[in-house]
Amino acid sequence: MMIKAGIIGGAGYTAGELIRLLIHHKEVKIDFVFSTSNSGNPISAIHQDLVGSIDQKFTDTINTNIDVLFLCLGHGNSGKFLAEHQFSDTTKIIDLSNEFRLVNDKVFQGNEYVYGLPEINKEEIKGANYIANPGCFATAIQLAIAPLASKKLITNNIHVNAVTGATGAGTSLSKTTHFTWRDNNFSYYKPFTHQHLGEIYQTIEKFQSESKHQVLFLPNRGNFSRGIFATVYTEFSGSAKEAIKIYKEFYKDAAFTFVADQTLHLKQVVNTNKCLVHVHKHENQLLITSCIDNLLKGASGQAVQNMNLMFGFEETEGLQLKANFF
Amino acid sequence: MMIKAGIIGGAGYTAGELIRLLIHHKEVKIDFVFSTSNSGNPISAIHQDLVGSIDQKFTDTINTNIDVLFLCLGHGNSGKFLAEHQFSDTTKIIDLSNEFRLVNDKVFQGNEYVYGLPEINKEEIKGANYIANPGCFATAIQLAIAPLASKKLITNNIHVNAVTGATGAGTSLSKTTHFTWRDNNFSYYKPFTHQHLGEIYQTIEKFQSESKHQVLFLPNRGNFSRGIFATVYTEFSGSAKEAIKIYKEFYKDAAFTFVADQTLHLKQVVNTNKCLVHVHKHENQLLITSCIDNLLKGASGQAVQNMNLMFGFEETEGLQLKANFF
Amino acid sequence: MMIKAGIIGGAGYTAGELIRLLIHHKEVKIDFVFSTSNSGNPISAIHQDLVGSIDQKFTDTINTNIDVLFLCLGHGNSGKFLAEHQFSDTTKIIDLSNEFRLVNDKVFQGNEYVYGLPEINKEEIKGANYIANPGCFATAIQLAIAPLASKKLITNNIHVNAVTGATGAGTSLSKTTHFTWRDNNFSYYKPFTHQHLGEIYQTIEKFQSESKHQVLFLPNRGNFSRGIFATVYTEFSGSAKEAIKIYKEFYKDAAFTFVADQTLHLKQVVNTNKCLVHVHKHENQLLITSCIDNLLKGASGQAVQNMNLMFGFEETEGLQLKANFF
Amino acid sequence: MMIKAGIIGGAGYTAGELIRLLIHHKEVKIDFVFSTSNSGNPISAIHQDLVGSIDQKFTDTINTNIDVLFLCLGHGNSGKFLAEHQFSDTTKIIDLSNEFRLVNDKVFQGNEYVYGLPEINKEEIKGANYIANPGCFATAIQLAIAPLASKKLITNNIHVNAVTGATGAGTSLSKTTHFTWRDNNFSYYKPFTHQHLGEIYQTIEKFQSESKHQVLFLPNRGNFSRGIFATVYTEFSGSAKEAIKIYKEFYKDAAFTFVADQTLHLKQVVNTNKCLVHVHKHENQLLITSCIDNLLKGASGQAVQNMNLMFGFEETEGLQLKANFF
Repeated sequence: MMIKAGIIGGAGYTAGELIRLLIHHKEVKIDFVFSTSNSGNPISAIHQDLVGSIDQKFTDTINTNIDVLFLCLGHGNSGKFLAEHQFSDTTKIIDLSNEFRLVNDKVFQGNEYVYGLPEINKEEIKGANYIANPGCFATAIQLAIAPLASKKLITNNIHVNAVTGATGAGTSLSKTTHFTWRDNNFSYYKPFTHQHLGEIYQTIEKFQSESKHQVLFLPNRGNFSRGIFATVYTEFSGSAKEAIKIYKEFYKDAAFTFVADQTLHLKQVVNTNKCLVHVHKHENQLLITSCIDNLLKGASGQAVQNMNLMFGFEETEGLQLKANFF
Repeated sequence: MMIKAGIIGGAGYTAGELIRLLIHHKEVKIDFVFSTSNSGNPISAIHQDLVGSIDQKFTDTINTNIDVLFLCLGHGNSGKFLAEHQFSDTTKIIDLSNEFRLVNDKVFQGNEYVYGLPEINKEEIKGANYIANPGCFATAIQLAIAPLASKKLITNNIHVNAVTGATGAGTSLSKTTHFTWRDNNFSYYKPFTHQHLGEIYQTIEKFQSESKHQVLFLPNRGNFSRGIFATVYTEFSGSAKEAIKIYKEFYKDAAFTFVADQTLHLKQVVNTNKCLVHVHKHENQLLITSCIDNLLKGASGQAVQNMNLMFGFEETEGLQLKANFF
Repeated sequence: MMIKAGIIGGAGYTAGELIRLLIHHKEVKIDFVFSTSNSGNPISAIHQDLVGSIDQKFTDTINTNIDVLFLCLGHGNSGKFLAEHQFSDTTKIIDLSNEFRLVNDKVFQGNEYVYGLPEINKEEIKGANYIANPGCFATAIQLAIAPLASKKLITNNIHVNAVTGATGAGTSLSKTTHFTWRDNNFSYYKPFTHQHLGEIYQTIEKFQSESKHQVLFLPNRGNFSRGIFATVYTEFSGSAKEAIKIYKEFYKDAAFTFVADQTLHLKQVVNTNKCLVHVHKHENQLLITSCIDNLLKGASGQAVQNMNLMFGFEETEGLQLKANFF
Repeated sequence: MMIKAGIIGGAGYTAGELIRLLIHHKEVKIDFVFSTSNSGNPISAIHQDLVGSIDQKFTDTINTNIDVLFLCLGHGNSGKFLAEHQFSDTTKIIDLSNEFRLVNDKVFQGNEYVYGLPEINKEEIKGANYIANPGCFATAIQLAIAPLASKKLITNNIHVNAVTGATGAGTSLSKTTHFTWRDNNFSYYKPFTHQHLGEIYQTIEKFQSESKHQVLFLPNRGNFSRGIFATVYTEFSGSAKEAIKIYKEFYKDAAFTFVADQTLHLKQVVNTNKCLVHVHKHENQLLITSCIDNLLKGASGQAVQNMNLMFGFEETEGLQLKANFF
């Protein structure tokens, strides 16, 4: 018997991706896709690749008896929405916003939101009813740093340069997502102050609580639509071989995170739920590269992965995706 | 029990796509991927999105007892390869080149190759052991024209303007696939003389043998990697409503071809096996738009669709793909 | 002594291009750039490539005693603006909108606007005080058709397929200019009904008034920022050689329009004021390709060319631009 | 009277850019463009934007009596070429390769090659007969670091992350310049070991010889054709205001390098000879951004700038270029 899923904020990027994933998930039936602005319109009129794949319409009414609820609202709106809508006690909730990710924010309405990064938190996720789904940059960067921190090997500042695609900025129109600005362009934003740093520090502290080193993170805007490519380096006294062993060991049971032997490029992961990680040593610097699709492993794919774990489904169900690659 | 598949010409675009599809196909096991130049290398060293997804290596030895053989060789090399390698009588063959597509070429080594366009040839494909898989432009254009021809409504020349991505030109390096040439550029090639016209005329004649009208086809090079967007117009004396009815009727049982109500754009189909078709009438012109992913519905996806039909699998098995969309 | 120029609508694409051109024009001084919304801001804060090149600010006050006024307003706003602002009798006006282009619209406030396509109207432009600057698609398509029409050789319908970049849609944000939509995408709009058809028919009639043939024009949206690539074909009974001779003769004195011997691609003209034209014959079809930069030869560059002619400057002054090419 | 220029290696990117610049330079006449492989072909058959702009052909004969010679050969071939061809004593030479840039390499055939970065070396360049034109990454990065070093304020390691377009890799075809690889992709190469580090350290030492700090430089491949965007950070104890003052002072007389008040994006400089620099302070880190067009300020534009200085022309002559911007 299939579980019933509801999606809130149905017209955005992450909701679209969730729908694309769930229509082929063999354990899940989409019960409703909530969007007040699009209520009554076919879902395929907005998510137009779904012509021929889904006949449902957006709705402005909510079934509070669903098995799983995905909150795909803008940052700051999840708590507000939950305050206004009472769901069944048995409804599990996966929130894609940043509202419940930090330890200080994780209890809401008496419910504890577990940080949903399966590579570092799988057992907790399996037992959870409420998930705070990680941020996209936060996912890529944590997966680059966590193995090192897990061995308490952060001994100096960590330098992070990462670039994200235009879907990272949401569907709303803005100067820097206008095609004539973005096409063949490159820039940075929020230097050293990106809001995902909180999640990243929290994970470092989880493994190496005594670390007081800085993460110097420079986020960039790339002229592509999907994906995050992160380069991370810090001092490391061991050999390349030792480092690679640590990373391979850390991810040996991971369903979607793999340590690649060759240098990475972004399109290896676009339109998949994978995170690929590569480790390189030069003199005393360890350079770790990681790349993900920001909308999948960085958002909706990871949300489905968390759902799979919470409901005891195969972790990879619905997520064996064909890469776009070209 | 899974059938065993072999792939010849394993390092190219279409072979890569086949591998991406078959590793998640529940009825098929990839027995070998043949590539003399890459023999011994991991498949994922060339098709690099497959890191973590496949451990097999390219091979230069061939198992002649497989159930299905996919020929992904350059045009002109399939016959030569088959002349040099003898497969089991029970091995079904799907050739992705243009060698056996035309009526005059369809018998080779005593075997008859069925033209593998399921929308017009499904029953023959189900009974076939040998398939000539259609060309990419030919697929998009035929699917735009066939419904009209099926009603013998081609009454004048047909004007076709279509644009393809850089994967349409194959993996070999050339001036017009160099990034600095192609990026933000546009051009045409082979005006009115593209090699796919033969297949297109053959299908028109199949339905409306008396038609002597020309297909004036202008192929263009677009600055994207995947996809074909084709606009096709010709005179039509009926109403828009009548035309749409003809198209919806023609495709009512199609597994992957759908008539869209809204104007199309290419990314609705990229990384899927779909063909979307749209019909519009202006004065006496009927404008039909069709779009496909040239590597999927235009090549490897259609090859798998044909395989599914030949072996009695679900027609959509392994082809329920998540669109890239962004 | 330099002439004084004023620019109205200063924050848009065409105003930006005008400023980029005029700051290096040796006969012109920019007197003011009018923009109510940006009044007081540095011009280089909006047209950001001009950091280091211009110190002027946008203004909301107008000097009515300038020598030349460029109207870069949205379509429909030029007449309204002129009704509200009285300029000196000696101020020449170049309007970049579509308001005064057609014969029926060309007299406004008692002034006659000359259609500013130098290749067909040079002498009239030289004597004009008011110019209606042609549309971008209209420029590319007319320059492909005019030589043929000039010999009264339009004998059948004309099929036009042309693709424009995202700057063609103006600076305002819209779904189809959002990067995540446009990137690697392709689509068409306004099939057979584009508003530039009026100008195109007007020019055909100028040369071959008895022609009653249709121009079937399909405009497309390409995933690039600048440029128009137009393919135009119609029946032609002469030889390729004869056609080429007609075109070379027609453009032998043109300052910016050249007949190319090789097949064209868009980037040959991007960031220049050129129009390149190529002529090819296949069976009974004559295929003419033309390409321009929509913001230069299709808008601001042609406006400066017109200004040069009106004031007796060198026709190419300020327009010897380095192509971007890559 | 115009000087006569010769260009060696005429079919490549940098030679093409030089030709584009010199045809509009009022003090220079292109005497010959040498290319053995293209000898006899029109220059506009290779540099195809020049149709209508230049009638000259490539040649395989050399006039050794020219005033200035530009060497646009692949790295390692300049010395070889000069050993085989004897030019007049009065011929000034500008070499665009990396062969004579370092102090240890700067004397060749008894001639001393001056490092041609005008912002730090203008007086020497004015008196030079032989110029080693800087590397593209080296130009962007030095212009970000030099003001700080000039005040001996390098107090810690310098972290550099920079991204270059596909023209940075030269015209030869390669996997990573194939459109289907590069489009919408991102990757890095030569981490911490790029060959331009030598030039960068040399310039730091010139100003602050005692500095023993590392430049940790990660070069990236972006999916655009032109441009370099470099972010550079290091510890700085002063205020943002102090830093900005240092930079503005350092560049107050620079012809093409400007300190921008707003955050930068790459397209501000594409198709210009500018370098824009921006300075930002966060906690104890000073973040300096610089961007250039790799083929202009990073190669051919700077070569013309050096020529202007060597011959006493206006420094900006021929280099007042219209940005592409969109």
